[in-house]
Amino acid sequence: MAAEPSLADVLAFVAQHEPDYLEELRRFVAIPSVSALSEHKGDMVACAEFVAAALGSAGLTAEVLPTAGHPVVYGEWTGAAGQPTALVYGHYDVQPVDPIDLWDSPPFEATLREGRLYGRGAADDKGQVLMHWAALAALLSVRGSLPVNVKVLVEGEEEIASRNLEVFLMANRERLAADLVVISDTDLFAPGLPAICYGLRGIAYFQIEVVGAAGDLHSGSYGGAVANPIEALAKILAGLKDDRGRILIPGFYDRVRPIGEREKAELARLPFDEEGFREETGAPALHGEAGYTTLERLWTRPTLDPNGIWGGFTGEGLKTVLPSRASAKVSCRLVPDQDPAEIGRLFEAHVQRLCPHGVTASVRIMDGGKPWVTSIDHPAIQAAARALAKGFGQEPVYTRAGGSIPIVAAFQALLGAPTVLMGIAPPDDHAHAPNERMDLANVYAGIRSAVHFWDELGRTNMASGGQ
Amino acid sequence: MAAEPSLADVLAFVAQHEPDYLEELRRFVAIPSVSALSEHKGDMVACAEFVAAALGSAGLTAEVLPTAGHPVVYGEWTGAAGQPTALVYGHYDVQPVDPIDLWDSPPFEATLREGRLYGRGAADDKGQVLMHWAALAALLSVRGSLPVNVKVLVEGEEEIASRNLEVFLMANRERLAADLVVISDTDLFAPGLPAICYGLRGIAYFQIEVVGAAGDLHSGSYGGAVANPIEALAKILAGLKDDRGRILIPGFYDRVRPIGEREKAELARLPFDEEGFREETGAPALHGEAGYTTLERLWTRPTLDPNGIWGGFTGEGLKTVLPSRASAKVSCRLVPDQDPAEIGRLFEAHVQRLCPHGVTASVRIMDGGKPWVTSIDHPAIQAAARALAKGFGQEPVYTRAGGSIPIVAAFQALLGAPTVLMGIAPPDDHAHAPNERMDLANVYAGIRSAVHFWDELGRTNMASGGQ
Repeated sequence: MAAEPSLADVLAFVAQHEPDYLEELRRFVAIPSVSALSEHKGDMVACAEFVAAALGSAGLTAEVLPTAGHPVVYGEWTGAAGQPTALVYGHYDVQPVDPIDLWDSPPFEATLREGRLYGRGAADDKGQVLMHWAALAALLSVRGSLPVNVKVLVEGEEEIASRNLEVFLMANRERLAADLVVISDTDLFAPGLPAICYGLRGIAYFQIEVVGAAGDLHSGSYGGAVANPIEALAKILAGLKDDRGRILIPGFYDRVRPIGEREKAELARLPFDEEGFREETGAPALHGEAGYTTLERLWTRPTLDPNGIWGGFTGEGLKTVLPSRASAKVSCRLVPDQDPAEIGRLFEAHVQRLCPHGVTASVRIMDGGKPWVTSIDHPAIQAAARALAKGFGQEPVYTRAGGSIPIVAAFQALLGAPTVLMGIAPPDDHAHAPNERMDLANVYAGIRSAVHFWDELGRTNMASGGQ
Repeated sequence: MAAEPSLADVLAFVAQHEPDYLEELRRFVAIPSVSALSEHKGDMVACAEFVAAALGSAGLTAEVLPTAGHPVVYGEWTGAAGQPTALVYGHYDVQPVDPIDLWDSPPFEATLREGRLYGRGAADDKGQVLMHWAALAALLSVRGSLPVNVKVLVEGEEEIASRNLEVFLMANRERLAADLVVISDTDLFAPGLPAICYGLRGIAYFQIEVVGAAGDLHSGSYGGAVANPIEALAKILAGLKDDRGRILIPGFYDRVRPIGEREKAELARLPFDEEGFREETGAPALHGEAGYTTLERLWTRPTLDPNGIWGGFTGEGLKTVLPSRASAKVSCRLVPDQDPAEIGRLFEAHVQRLCPHGVTASVRIMDGGKPWVTSIDHPAIQAAARALAKGFGQEPVYTRAGGSIPIVAAFQALLGAPTVLMGIAPPDDHAHAPNERMDLANVYAGIRSAVHFWDELGRTNMASGGQ
């Protein structure tokens, strides 16, 4: 009997297949799987089938499962009797691409420039989903088995707040049972410096509509005697935050868990390049809540941001119109222990309080996701730390993230399993914006890290610590 | 030698031709002469030619004259040697039609419903331009001559602040020389109740752009640490006016001429139906500057109104974006003796003063027009009052208007001639808005009034009074 292929053989396999990974990521990005826009419904199905085929080729049993919205892809390999089971989660849907004219290359033609692959979804989250199936394929191809049982769930609605995933999880609770959840949808802390994320902000997303007159009016014939909904909306938005960046919604901060002195000190120790961060944004200056550092603002403080606004005449030239309505999309990033539903009630009440005379305002709660933090002492998180150190050749740092993965809280609640966030996107990935990009080196180091992670996990006593 | 045809014969001719006027107005409205949108350039030329043909058929020498923008139509009949000369001004251009989905019938298919003709431009200003050429045609057709000399100037850029007309007037000063200017681009005071307008508000129109980051950012990864241009724009707009409707731009009111007790009392005596006005707007309540009545707000007080706003994600669904820019169109209605150029400087300075940290704001001055008031004692105005009384069978009231006809001030300055505003649009004409409409009865009464006006003017000693 031949010797069992070693981990080195698996890593050699990975190294040999790098050109194939690039080609496969190109094909993955080329599918315009924009979950928010109904015109991409067919692309969503095509993308789900692409992911299922990739999981099947890797050696998992894989299928596309329907939901009330876009389908979920599910695959599993459960041949490691007596070993722990991990559930890997990712998403195949991407953000819309507008403003399209700010892209330097077409968003759905993955374009390689100076080692970076540009395209919508390259970093968020297609490159990171591919990292997992590539590592599983390498292990199964070279060794014929995995050290632990692995289930993979790739959804199609992460960018629209995972609308139907909670129902899906409830319905498939037994099938998805796992000892831990692994999610790769976060960033490196700096180029080449891996990070394990132990906290995420939640989100509450709203749409405000302000209505005055029944129809648009001539601003000369009526101006001065009829309230202007754009002005009213501006007053509402201006009344949501003071000049020091403090949100003015009564009760908004009541459940915010203050960070301790230890965590504050650890954040201050991270090699964060404030001026580099500002340069990356292109903003004339950084700006946020008074009394907090940039990392504290991003990771530990809640926000309120208008995401879009529209009303009246927005075309070329002049139109002397007194518009009948104006709308805005507004979202709050939430931190432990804020609750999106409660924030929704407080938000709506404050909008009504701010609504000026002569118009009416309505608030639609679009979606929400809970914030999350976990302990970094859990053995699965420590296994991930060792794996990233080997894959990237650099010890990881422990970070939080400003973004939301609403499903993390749902996993914690539903499966009772801890979650490990090991993401490999570059910090300047332009996710959700024009010219989204992924470093190819990260993809390759990520695949190596995932190989190490399964290996480390096979040798870890999951009951030895952590929360 | 046969008896000279009487005024009664001319009025009988008008009555016989009512179906023809309706048909001609339909064809006039059907030409989509939207001056603000470059895609309608060809329609503007077609519309100018339509007007020139109508003036020619009426018996004037008529031609289409170029400007740096849309052409001007000019016609004249100067056979009344020794008699005064009047210059009739109107415009053939119309406002854009959006929001198109709020129209009950296509804006460029003039549709007759219950005695009202619906279509863009039916009231503002095509129905009123037609009124003049119809009256001149009737007089010239029945009597072969006019009691005074008449020049007619119909421009194509009134809805874009008459950009090129001042240059045209300068270049054609001799040719346009007149003893008075007649403009029909205002409203009846109430259904069937004619009005002579002796004051107009001016306008100053701006576009504000606020820029933060160089490109759109992920609201999770950056939110809280980078300023939001929509929020900044909302704070700027909210800072332009206080909660009592008072504009906060320093110096804004410095040149506002207060109305006297006599005028205040006259305004209060007008049969103004406040609740009917509110119902017509469909707004939940009227709203304006504290301390003034609705008519005072509309006619004698300056305003500041956002006309449009846009920024960030405005599509279907969610996008968690921190936008890089936001824009608004804002305009001020001005009253004597405010000056649009000075208001522009004050506006820009205040926007810069209000601009929050972390973003930059820029102001583009789009266009401006001066406010205007005149004396109602001038013999030409009194002739118009007698003509309207005969045409409508109802003594006119004296009013001001909230809208702008920027060219009125230019006529006053350039030709040194007084201006008579005799408009026939219904007060609820929805000008500049969806479902613009014109009462057919007004068109017919307007044509009769115009016939009477030329007759009255032929018997008026222009030097007998007025300012």
